[in-house]
Amino acid sequence: MQSTEISSLGEFGLINRLTANLPRVNQSTIYGVGDDAAVINYPETDVLVTTDLLLEGVHFDLTYVPLRHLGYKAAVVNFSDIYAMNGRPRQITVSLGISKRFTVEHIEELYAGIRLACEIYGVDIVGGDTTSSRQGLVISITCIGDAAKGDAVYRNGAADTDLICVSGDLGAAYMGLQLLEREKAASTGQRDFTPDFHGKEYLVERQLKPEARKDIIEELKKAAIKPTAMMDISDGLSSELLHICKQSKTGCRIYEDRIPIDYQTAIMAEELGMNLVTAALNGGEDYELLFTVPLHTHDIVERISGVKVIGYITKEDLGCAMITRDGNEITLRAQGWNPLA
Amino acid sequence: MQSTEISSLGEFGLINRLTANLPRVNQSTIYGVGDDAAVINYPETDVLVTTDLLLEGVHFDLTYVPLRHLGYKAAVVNFSDIYAMNGRPRQITVSLGISKRFTVEHIEELYAGIRLACEIYGVDIVGGDTTSSRQGLVISITCIGDAAKGDAVYRNGAADTDLICVSGDLGAAYMGLQLLEREKAASTGQRDFTPDFHGKEYLVERQLKPEARKDIIEELKKAAIKPTAMMDISDGLSSELLHICKQSKTGCRIYEDRIPIDYQTAIMAEELGMNLVTAALNGGEDYELLFTVPLHTHDIVERISGVKVIGYITKEDLGCAMITRDGNEITLRAQGWNPLA
Repeated sequence: MQSTEISSLGEFGLINRLTANLPRVNQSTIYGVGDDAAVINYPETDVLVTTDLLLEGVHFDLTYVPLRHLGYKAAVVNFSDIYAMNGRPRQITVSLGISKRFTVEHIEELYAGIRLACEIYGVDIVGGDTTSSRQGLVISITCIGDAAKGDAVYRNGAADTDLICVSGDLGAAYMGLQLLEREKAASTGQRDFTPDFHGKEYLVERQLKPEARKDIIEELKKAAIKPTAMMDISDGLSSELLHICKQSKTGCRIYEDRIPIDYQTAIMAEELGMNLVTAALNGGEDYELLFTVPLHTHDIVERISGVKVIGYITKEDLGCAMITRDGNEITLRAQGWNPLA
Repeated sequence: MQSTEISSLGEFGLINRLTANLPRVNQSTIYGVGDDAAVINYPETDVLVTTDLLLEGVHFDLTYVPLRHLGYKAAVVNFSDIYAMNGRPRQITVSLGISKRFTVEHIEELYAGIRLACEIYGVDIVGGDTTSSRQGLVISITCIGDAAKGDAVYRNGAADTDLICVSGDLGAAYMGLQLLEREKAASTGQRDFTPDFHGKEYLVERQLKPEARKDIIEELKKAAIKPTAMMDISDGLSSELLHICKQSKTGCRIYEDRIPIDYQTAIMAEELGMNLVTAALNGGEDYELLFTVPLHTHDIVERISGVKVIGYITKEDLGCAMITRDGNEITLRAQGWNPLA
């Protein structure tokens, strides 16, 4: 790979290089990169805004995260928030803080991942900010999306007897992280170390290259089901479910044996001697959707591929609990990853 | 001041504390903090989006920047970008990366400054992200604003014979920075050091607590003048003027003796043995407006308090130059502050 110093291009040179030939796929994008602000237009819809700040050493470790994957993930986690509102992502702004050890080619790799995610999800890059950083890489992405008026789904709409649903499976991204950390530790001081991901490719992929569940949002729309509450699972099922119950002023019951878990996740938990259900409940970064639907939609929602009903909403005074395989009730606690710990 | 560890509150506790009782002043704000995304609505207008990333050690030095001022400035520089599009700021999201040396009270100070700026400029805080940082304080703010359809002013609309105007005065924020750096150096190793800002209060204020020129946008509207091109001066007049000329495919002439400079700026340049005009041309962070208007509006624009006509737009092949007091032409160069140097 070539190695061009960023200072040789300067801020505007770098921005020009990164944002050359940006496509524009959304009608709502009027004017993108190159002025004091982007101009967008949403005469018919509600506009959704979400933002994520990713810091090196806190959210990612470049020892094992390829820059292209990092860019892809940084964009996708924002799209996930928009889908979790029942919306569609349309535009992003990308701010980067870049320390001296990065070359132009490094940042192009990162940006290539962001651009790929935008291409796949139909999103326009409309602006951002680029600056030097004294220490690590800083990525701040803001995503703008839209939802037809009245279509946005909040966290606060769940009601007694609603069904609790999740998409995909849980805990795999967390196990992927454990695996990557294990291989990183094993590689210390070794030259030509080849990490062993055999039979665990799914875990690595879930950690490094998550996808947002655009498909589920589309399936729900096709089935004419509007969730009563929804969010994406970034901090762990327990934590997110407690958010929905708190904001909706309800309780809930979920069944341990209904929590969807991939077999690779189970094998990895076994290998590491970790409690599998704890990992599925509290492991973060799944970016699956957690949502509630009215009880009468049970048969329809069960038929949607990739969706599983895991429990139901109760009155608030019943609290939030998981019913274990042997019939006991365990109170749910938010043990999710605490980014301020 | 009390000193509460952030980890004792956790992410959600901190967010709840910072965002308690947030006012909502704009009709376009439908739903703010507390869900996966904010919901806003702009049926009638174009929507403007701008974002700024501020990193400790690069953009600010907490040795002499009070956290409350920093919060105020971080918000205002985003508002300035929206005004520079001829728009009005309406919403912001605030992402913070916080390292361990900050307490809850520190972050409340920072947030108090952000909230004050929002109150003064009529802006709603609608979301954000809060995380720990390994690398000092990180502030990423995205601002959303609006402009009546067709009202947005870009950088690319300047035309031959247009007048070049600036608001306020230039170079003071840069001189304020020099002054603060000088006093910081003087204080090294001394206890109970009192910095001497006597007679230079304006410079310090321009550096620590800039304002966005909402008033000028309102005056231009009252006078029924729509600039042909506009931007805010954050990297220095030279650099910004070159942006406008490049994007508009024009040249320009500005007059050295017309560049507005405050007397405190002049005295400070004298003291430091710096070239005053160089400081006014290339010193950053003025957050004044640079705009062009049609020649026939000369008499009207000249009457607007705080606006000065400093030159005119030419055909592209004449290049960009400043005419000095003694009648020479000096080619304008972008020597502005390079955040990637």
